[in-house]
Amino acid sequence: VNPWVAAAIAGLWLVQLAAQSTPAPDGSVPAPSNVPGAQYPRVHPDNSVTFRIKADGAQKVTIGADDLVKGADGFWTATTKPYTPGFHYYSVVVDGFTTTDPGSQTFFGYARQNSAIEIPGPESDFFAPKDVPHGSVRMEWYFSKTTNRWRRAFVYTPPGYDTSRNTRYPVLYLQHGAGEDETGWSRQGHENFILDNLIAAGRVKPMVVVNENGTILPVPGAPPAPRGRGVMLENRFTEFDDVVSRDLIPFVDATFRTIADRDHRAIAGLSMGGAEAMRIGVNHLEQFSHIGLFSPAIGNLDPAVHYDGKLSSAASINRQLRLLWIGIGTEDTLHDGVKASREALDRAGIKHVWVESAGGHTWTVWRKYLADFAPLLFR
Amino acid sequence: VNPWVAAAIAGLWLVQLAAQSTPAPDGSVPAPSNVPGAQYPRVHPDNSVTFRIKADGAQKVTIGADDLVKGADGFWTATTKPYTPGFHYYSVVVDGFTTTDPGSQTFFGYARQNSAIEIPGPESDFFAPKDVPHGSVRMEWYFSKTTNRWRRAFVYTPPGYDTSRNTRYPVLYLQHGAGEDETGWSRQGHENFILDNLIAAGRVKPMVVVNENGTILPVPGAPPAPRGRGVMLENRFTEFDDVVSRDLIPFVDATFRTIADRDHRAIAGLSMGGAEAMRIGVNHLEQFSHIGLFSPAIGNLDPAVHYDGKLSSAASINRQLRLLWIGIGTEDTLHDGVKASREALDRAGIKHVWVESAGGHTWTVWRKYLADFAPLLFR
Repeated sequence: VNPWVAAAIAGLWLVQLAAQSTPAPDGSVPAPSNVPGAQYPRVHPDNSVTFRIKADGAQKVTIGADDLVKGADGFWTATTKPYTPGFHYYSVVVDGFTTTDPGSQTFFGYARQNSAIEIPGPESDFFAPKDVPHGSVRMEWYFSKTTNRWRRAFVYTPPGYDTSRNTRYPVLYLQHGAGEDETGWSRQGHENFILDNLIAAGRVKPMVVVNENGTILPVPGAPPAPRGRGVMLENRFTEFDDVVSRDLIPFVDATFRTIADRDHRAIAGLSMGGAEAMRIGVNHLEQFSHIGLFSPAIGNLDPAVHYDGKLSSAASINRQLRLLWIGIGTEDTLHDGVKASREALDRAGIKHVWVESAGGHTWTVWRKYLADFAPLLFR
Repeated sequence: VNPWVAAAIAGLWLVQLAAQSTPAPDGSVPAPSNVPGAQYPRVHPDNSVTFRIKADGAQKVTIGADDLVKGADGFWTATTKPYTPGFHYYSVVVDGFTTTDPGSQTFFGYARQNSAIEIPGPESDFFAPKDVPHGSVRMEWYFSKTTNRWRRAFVYTPPGYDTSRNTRYPVLYLQHGAGEDETGWSRQGHENFILDNLIAAGRVKPMVVVNENGTILPVPGAPPAPRGRGVMLENRFTEFDDVVSRDLIPFVDATFRTIADRDHRAIAGLSMGGAEAMRIGVNHLEQFSHIGLFSPAIGNLDPAVHYDGKLSSAASINRQLRLLWIGIGTEDTLHDGVKASREALDRAGIKHVWVESAGGHTWTVWRKYLADFAPLLFR
């Protein structure tokens, strides 16, 4: 009998945390994206970041463009140039090993669990957890006849959903980007806090938001997609189109108190998810009346040719779509292709809202787009 | 305009996955705990595991007791001895840097996001996702007057909760261990699939399950807990006791369709969470009628002295507690202290169910305990 083992197990990591809890005299704070108690990475008042990694046997440690320097204590550190406020994925590379920083929470991105740092600022206010009523984010399993598998969706229900037992809500289907998954919009995106805050301010109609996994896995042995087809990403999503239109929507409408018609259903997504939203939305105008494209992976759209000609009649599209919203950052590598596509829509007479904003291909931009897009829905 | 950028962003990691998709001739399979598409770690038919890490500049790479060996391609590999089926946390150590394996999903444990490998086997059947009705796992935010903060709880609602709009359910409060958090029981524990399967088999009453974060953070500047007090962990949980009894239970009963009385409320937990369940349960017999201790961090209990004397009358405790369930693995480092405590309860005449099982201080055991404990609840 060792009566101390119990205390040791419970207390071990608390002691670890306590040892690190000395406040910094330089005004730096642990990043809000850290695991609880982790003192590094730290964000300085000028938004530069100090990373600190224990790797006493390493030859070389880098994070992004920064080489870390080894101290006498075996810890490697670097203080970066100021970051822009918002969300930044990062990896630690130790002697050629690319992985996570133990100080950071993990976020599924680049097809693995990845570190990221949130640089707080006034720009973070709209997705901060506040003292307002909060909705729920649910992990839901449902059966897909298309894939013959159980699949997982995340579903945001707005504040009051559980207690207002007869109210019915419109639904936004909202997709992540390539290499991410159905957790992206709640973890990286804070969709729940964005919606909670906008609903509390009376700026958004209470709605259900659904995130599925739009990842398109390669078919084993299949040749690569022919060049010229992949650009629009329009023909890659046949299976996911069926999953959403035939399996997911019926599940959501059967399970949640939705208003189950096209006028109260929207689809949006970021990057690859934007290409999916365009493909699925245009293909199913009987199901969707609002489409949102956040930095969509769409280039050089030709409305007369692409999407099986479903954009060829502007009058028909304009009558059916209550909103087509397109946003792209001026520093985004996709900017020019998306802009050219929007100009083609313009020439074809297809109405849309066009937002050219600051920023690149990042969650910092996509969170903002959700906050800009959601108030326009279901009006 | 570079029309290929869109396709490149969406396709980059798919190409990566496709390149790795050659099936292994030795019958090994990617661990079910891997991120989608990751081919390593792989589990062999004899439950040995091959790890594979890219670290071309490293001097030394270890995983647990295994030294990995560098190949000409810059990848380090090791094939281990056979693992026992179930869940095993692990870390990769590269030149003194302890972190995650990019091939693994991450699980919050040891106060950080950690890698783990699931060794499948017939023993995995009871927590496997099956073709049965599935409940939901929800992330819920609620305000705690005790801590003056918004807190997060995970709440499992059973299959049919959303569609059977008048049914009310009993509630199990179920806690993680030290260094883990409120995600543990759904991610490591698969509580939802365990309950789904037992409910489908008619062996468990449909119930709501609530997981909160029982982490006790050190008070800055406070001296360490005096030796002899920490053992029972009985007096460390004052704040968490208040959070559960004053804030969480009223929130759950106001939000979900529960049967809000002591006969339909249970509390259980593993390791530190077991100590919390004992403390909070015994302290609030007006709220709880069932207590479950899974490998609890409790040693050398003296019923006459501990828990403020609330165990001193066996007759009173036996009248109020419909179930006190205690389980511990024979290979658990806490085994002897828990066994001594159970013997003390026995001598004091306090009724309980005692389960001495195979296994150590692991989730493999705790999942099994949930499956053994839940059928005894609310009978």
